[in-house]
This record gives sequence, C-alpha cells and structure tokens, in this order.
Amino acid sequence: MKRYEDLSPSLRCIMTPGPVEVDPRVLRAMSFPVLGQFDPEFTDIMNETMGMLRELFVTGNQWAYPVDGTSRSGIEAAMVSLIAPGDRVLIPIFGRFGHLLHEIAERCGAEVRVLEKTWGSVFESSEVIAAMENFRPHVVAMVHGETSTGRVQPLAEIGRACREQDCLFIVDAVATIGGVPVETDAWMLDAVIGGTQKCLSVPSGMAPITYNERAEAKLLTRKRVERGLRTGDVEPGELSFVRSNYFDLGMLQDYWSPKRLNHHTEMTSMLYALREGLRLTLEEGLAARFARHILHEKALIAGLTAMGLNLYGDPESKLTVVTCVLIPEGVDGESVRSMLLDRFGIEIASTFGPLKGLIWRIGTMGFSCRENNILRLLGALEAVLIRHGVTVPRGLAIQAALDVYE
Amino acid sequence: MKRYEDLSPSLRCIMTPGPVEVDPRVLRAMSFPVLGQFDPEFTDIMNETMGMLRELFVTGNQWAYPVDGTSRSGIEAAMVSLIAPGDRVLIPIFGRFGHLLHEIAERCGAEVRVLEKTWGSVFESSEVIAAMENFRPHVVAMVHGETSTGRVQPLAEIGRACREQDCLFIVDAVATIGGVPVETDAWMLDAVIGGTQKCLSVPSGMAPITYNERAEAKLLTRKRVERGLRTGDVEPGELSFVRSNYFDLGMLQDYWSPKRLNHHTEMTSMLYALREGLRLTLEEGLAARFARHILHEKALIAGLTAMGLNLYGDPESKLTVVTCVLIPEGVDGESVRSMLLDRFGIEIASTFGPLKGLIWRIGTMGFSCRENNILRLLGALEAVLIRHGVTVPRGLAIQAALDVYE
Repeated sequence: MKRYEDLSPSLRCIMTPGPVEVDPRVLRAMSFPVLGQFDPEFTDIMNETMGMLRELFVTGNQWAYPVDGTSRSGIEAAMVSLIAPGDRVLIPIFGRFGHLLHEIAERCGAEVRVLEKTWGSVFESSEVIAAMENFRPHVVAMVHGETSTGRVQPLAEIGRACREQDCLFIVDAVATIGGVPVETDAWMLDAVIGGTQKCLSVPSGMAPITYNERAEAKLLTRKRVERGLRTGDVEPGELSFVRSNYFDLGMLQDYWSPKRLNHHTEMTSMLYALREGLRLTLEEGLAARFARHILHEKALIAGLTAMGLNLYGDPESKLTVVTCVLIPEGVDGESVRSMLLDRFGIEIASTFGPLKGLIWRIGTMGFSCRENNILRLLGALEAVLIRHGVTVPRGLAIQAALDVYE
Repeated sequence: MKRYEDLSPSLRCIMTPGPVEVDPRVLRAMSFPVLGQFDPEFTDIMNETMGMLRELFVTGNQWAYPVDGTSRSGIEAAMVSLIAPGDRVLIPIFGRFGHLLHEIAERCGAEVRVLEKTWGSVFESSEVIAAMENFRPHVVAMVHGETSTGRVQPLAEIGRACREQDCLFIVDAVATIGGVPVETDAWMLDAVIGGTQKCLSVPSGMAPITYNERAEAKLLTRKRVERGLRTGDVEPGELSFVRSNYFDLGMLQDYWSPKRLNHHTEMTSMLYALREGLRLTLEEGLAARFARHILHEKALIAGLTAMGLNLYGDPESKLTVVTCVLIPEGVDGESVRSMLLDRFGIEIASTFGPLKGLIWRIGTMGFSCRENNILRLLGALEAVLIRHGVTVPRGLAIQAALDVYE
C-alpha cells in the first residue's frame, strides 16, 4: 500500500483572480471543532452569517445565505430556481463567464438569446435595454466583474429597465463582492451571487447569494416539499418544479428559515470560515475595503507601466481587482509564470479562449491585496522578464509603486 | 452596525448519525494556507486523494474523486449524469433517504418505480430482483445504510442481477463508507457515493464518488464541453446533454484528469481535510476500522440493554454505526435530548417521518466512535432518564459496557 506523507503545502503569494490567500484568522476558524447542524449554537452562527451577508450585499432582502458548493453552484442554484423551462433569457456576454451563464441557462431549458461584446470592453446599458425591448425576456443574467478580461459592467440602468419590464435580473458578482461596490437594492438586482475565494478571501467552497421578494415569488410558484418530509398531497408547484433538489432555493430557504426543514447537512467548517471572512470584511468596513483595493491597483499599475508593460482592454471599464497585462512580443508567457511560481513562490494567472497566450492576469483581491505583495510581485516580475531577455528599465517599477504609497 | 463576537463553538460529544466529531489532525489540515487550483502542488494533492479514494471504495475504477458539495450533491451528480430523461429507474425504499433518491430521480425526468419496505427492515435481494425482471429498469438506485432507521441493505446479489440485466446500479453509501464494508467491485456497484461527515469524520462539504467504465460509457454519450471552453462545433452528446453544469460528471472527470479542463474552483481547504481524513482511515486500516466500529456498537448495546432500553428494528439488518433506541413510554424524547446537550454537551439524534417521537438514534461513527464517548454517553443518559422519572436500574449500564471492553 502506498504511504502518504503529512500535508505540507508551500506558502504562496497568490496574485491571481482567485483563489487568493486567506487571512490566518479565517484559516484558524476552520480548525475549530464542529457542531451538529441543529445544535442551537450552530443555528445561531447560521443566523449571524445571514445578517452579515445582508450588510455585504447592501440589501434589506430577507434571503441572504450561502449555497453549499463553489461559486458556480450559487449561479446554478439561482438560475435553475428562477428560470423555468421555456422562459426567455437574455444573456449579454463580454467574456468567458458570460458563456457559463449561457451554458447553464440552456441546461435549464431556457430559450436563450445572447448579445456578444468584443472581449476587452463592456456593454452600454442602452444596448442591453434595446435588446430587452425586442426580446421581452423573463430573465436577464449577466456578469458584473469578468475576471477573464478584467472588465466591470455598470448595472444600475439595466436593473431599472428590468424592473420596468417586470423581468428578473440575475447578477454574477462572484469576482466583485467585497472588493468593489455591489449595490443589490440600489441597482435593483433581483438575485446576486457572490464568491468566497476572491475578494472575501475565504477558501473556495461556498457561494453566498441573495434574492428579493420578486425572485422569491417566482420560486414559490415552483416549490414542493421533498419526498420523505412532506405530509400532504401534491403541492401547488408540482408541475413546474425545479429540476434540481440540491439547488432548489425554495427548499434551501426553508432550511435557512426558523422552520429548519432538513435538507443537506450544512458545511460546518466552511461556514465558520465564511462567518470569519465576513466579520473581517465588515470590521474593515466596505468603503475602506474598496478604497484599499483601488490604492493597490494604482500602485500595481504604476509599477507595471514603469517596467514598460502595457495593459489590456478599455481603461474605462477596467475592473479594479484584476489587471490584465499584454505579454511582450516574443516572450513565452507560461515560462514567465512558471519561473515566478517555482523560484519566487508567486502565482499570477493566464487566461481563457481568444486571449490565451496574449495576456497575464494579476489579481489584487482581498487578503492578497496588500503592499508587500505588490512590491514583491513587481520586483520578481522585473527580474524574471530580464531573465527572459526582455529589455526592461531596471529598478524603476518598485520605486514607482512606492511613490504611490508615499 | 451589529458587532459580531469571536467564533467560539462549544466542545461537543457528538453521538448522532452525522455530522460527527472531527479528528484534530483533520481540523489542523484545514488551517493550512491555500494553494492555487492549478498549482502543481495542488494537483498532486488531487491525484493523491483519488488514489486514496480508490482504496476506500475497494475499486480499480479510474474515477474516484469528490464532488464539491455536501453528500447529497454527490448523489445528485451521479443521478443527473447517469439518468437520462425518460429512463426507467427502480428505487427500493426502506427509509427516509430512499425517498430522497426517488425525489432526485423524478427531478431528472425519469420514469420511476418504487418498492417500499416497512421501516425497520430491509429488502430480500429476491424482492428487488423480481421487480427488476418485471420493470426492466435502466438504473436501480438504492441506499446502503439508512441512518433514518439504522438498517443496512445487502447489495451483492442485486449488483450481480444489475450486471446480468445490463442495468446501472447506483448506491448511496454516504452513511457506511469508512465504517462498514463497501465493496464497489466485488458487489458490482456501478456508481457509489460516500459521505465525509459520518464514518470518515471529515466536516461536511465534499461527496466522494466512484464509478466504473459502464457508468462512464453512459456519461460519455451525454457529454459536451462547456461553452467558452469548447473550440469546435456541436458535440455528439448535444441532444441528451446533462441538465446540470455543476453536476455533469463528464465535465468533472475532465477537470480531475490530466487534461485539467477548467470547471469549478476546487475547494482547497475541504480537499486538505478529505485527504487527511482518508490518510488516517487508511493508516488505521479498513479492516481494523470496521472491527472498531463493531466493538463500540457492542459496548453501547450492552449498556443500553442493561439500562432496560429496547432497540428498534429487525436485528438481522442492524447498521453497525447507528443504534436506534425506542423512547420509553411517557418520556418526552426531545426533552431528554435537550438535557443531554445542555447539561452534558452530548448530542444524540431524533428522526424523521413515521418514527418521529418514537426513537432516538445514536451514532457511533468515525472519530466519535471511541470508548470514552460510549462510557460518557451511557452515564449521562442514565442520569437524564432518572431525572425524567424513568425507573432505570442504576449503575449497571457503564459496567456492562466496561465488561465488553475487558
């Protein structure tokens, strides 16, 4: 039988668009002994987490809780619960994760119409609104921050139009929540999905979501109580019931409500981590946290520019927490990434599809977004580029970043 | 703004059918810093975990990996991937979790036939086989260990019959894996789902699964590569594609294969925990671990019997790791449970549906299954019953358990 060694992961400086480094206080929270899922101490922790999620999403919604899975589990839960087979769904796509929404909507049995924008820019609200007027969708689903291209889509005008047309607006805010403003109520977003492993800096494993009464009303038309738990006859929603048990938000909200109707076994240790990550986020304060992300982005860009590197994409729509850098001509981007990881312990990201091989993506998210990481990365990148034969102005990048900090 | 306190969960003695106590070495593993999901150190950990899962499931299957969600996420992944809409699915039910399989199969669009057995017993293999001959199912889905009733279903003969009739056999071994034998290959199980938070004593959050080439062949007929990642035109499986993106095993296995095709962001810290839990399980040895569970069950039963309590259900089919106890007449079962938790820090379980209020369920699973927990529970239960006015032979229960240990 094969022997397995003690776990001993290296300490990494993770400057990707997620997963990013985790605050030691969050890691510590996961090492606490577990409680039973119906232990009153545990249900208190569930309730506290809901309260903190409402603050994070800036919402008065009753429903704000994590779905137990990675970020895309929250996206699928919102979509499969809010999109009935045959519903018209409009999906404006400006990067890789818009395609994921398309994919999931198709699997939900929706009649999907997509709008595609050239990668590197975002939509004018008017473009989306014009398509809505033409297509009359039941649901619009859209990415807020596209990590594949480093862009952020303004949402408020589209949200207002959805409200006016009585259409539900589902927003993937996985990359933005906790790092840049996400105004659920003010922007009239009906369902929002956040991520843990990015700007919240909690390990991957839960997907915080929130949704309002308009979304809940649709859920409830499709609801049924699980076999083995229900007592009466067929429920009203029997015919159009949600195709997933695990992702049926109508059942999940019963579990997260005072009813505590048994569904899954809540992920104890991940919930501890999420609670602690939220606590640290709110303790810092959302406004201060967003300002911190802007400061370090500025220092990073100053350093990269001083090194002679160019940024990718329309500057107007740049996402604060992801900086896409054009790989200098003739340089093997993967070789640079490997050397950064192997020799310096620093991870940056490549990307997907049409941009593969053309850009690097540098994340400045959550706990990873701090001065010593920015300075460390700039110094290492300069050294690695020189080692790859690139003519780089030597010793300027870190100075430029320090200038920003001073 | 509300202030949130430091996390400080009480230390509990958890004697339920899960979630159960977690070995401190597993808790420690979760507190290690995270790695990026494509970091070679992390993909090594993924591969090691697959190797350990093959040993746990006693299988030569290529595919053995965790689905990222709680136990029922693994069940839903196996079912939604292996059951095409319109497939005939036979579900023999002998407790609450059989109803869950029925529920999920319906949501998959299957033509479901159920067999129901009175709670407290299990099926004769011949009953299931006769129903198969009549119904000619594409899939049989069945629970191995029913925690709601504390029963275990023999599977080998049904597995052989499924193979003979060219039908897929999906088994929910959530409650049994790591605590009682689960022989994937010898019993001819085509897909098996294990749980983490029970006999493996890892926190809830992942669902280890395995499936063989017969199951994979069916998956591949329904496969397509995700939009935003695929390069060519429509894939062969386009028409009968799996209705879930998150649970599409065809895509999950590409992510767990050397291709590493991007899907979700793997749950770093939960994978650390699973790896450590598997390592401890294999270090103890499966045979020794099963024997340990039998020993402590014996001591528990000796103590309960000496206390004058009666067990629920057919003794022939008793599940080693869950002991169901009839609540003495006139006793408020919930009041006993609350006093055990509030005064002694010990959690035992109630149950579901028809048995609610009639039985308690005591788990002896994984790390919770140890001598000092058994003795502590017996002493506390005796005291609490006396406090509830039950006439109990005093001071015999612990002695009876000690006799078993000596």
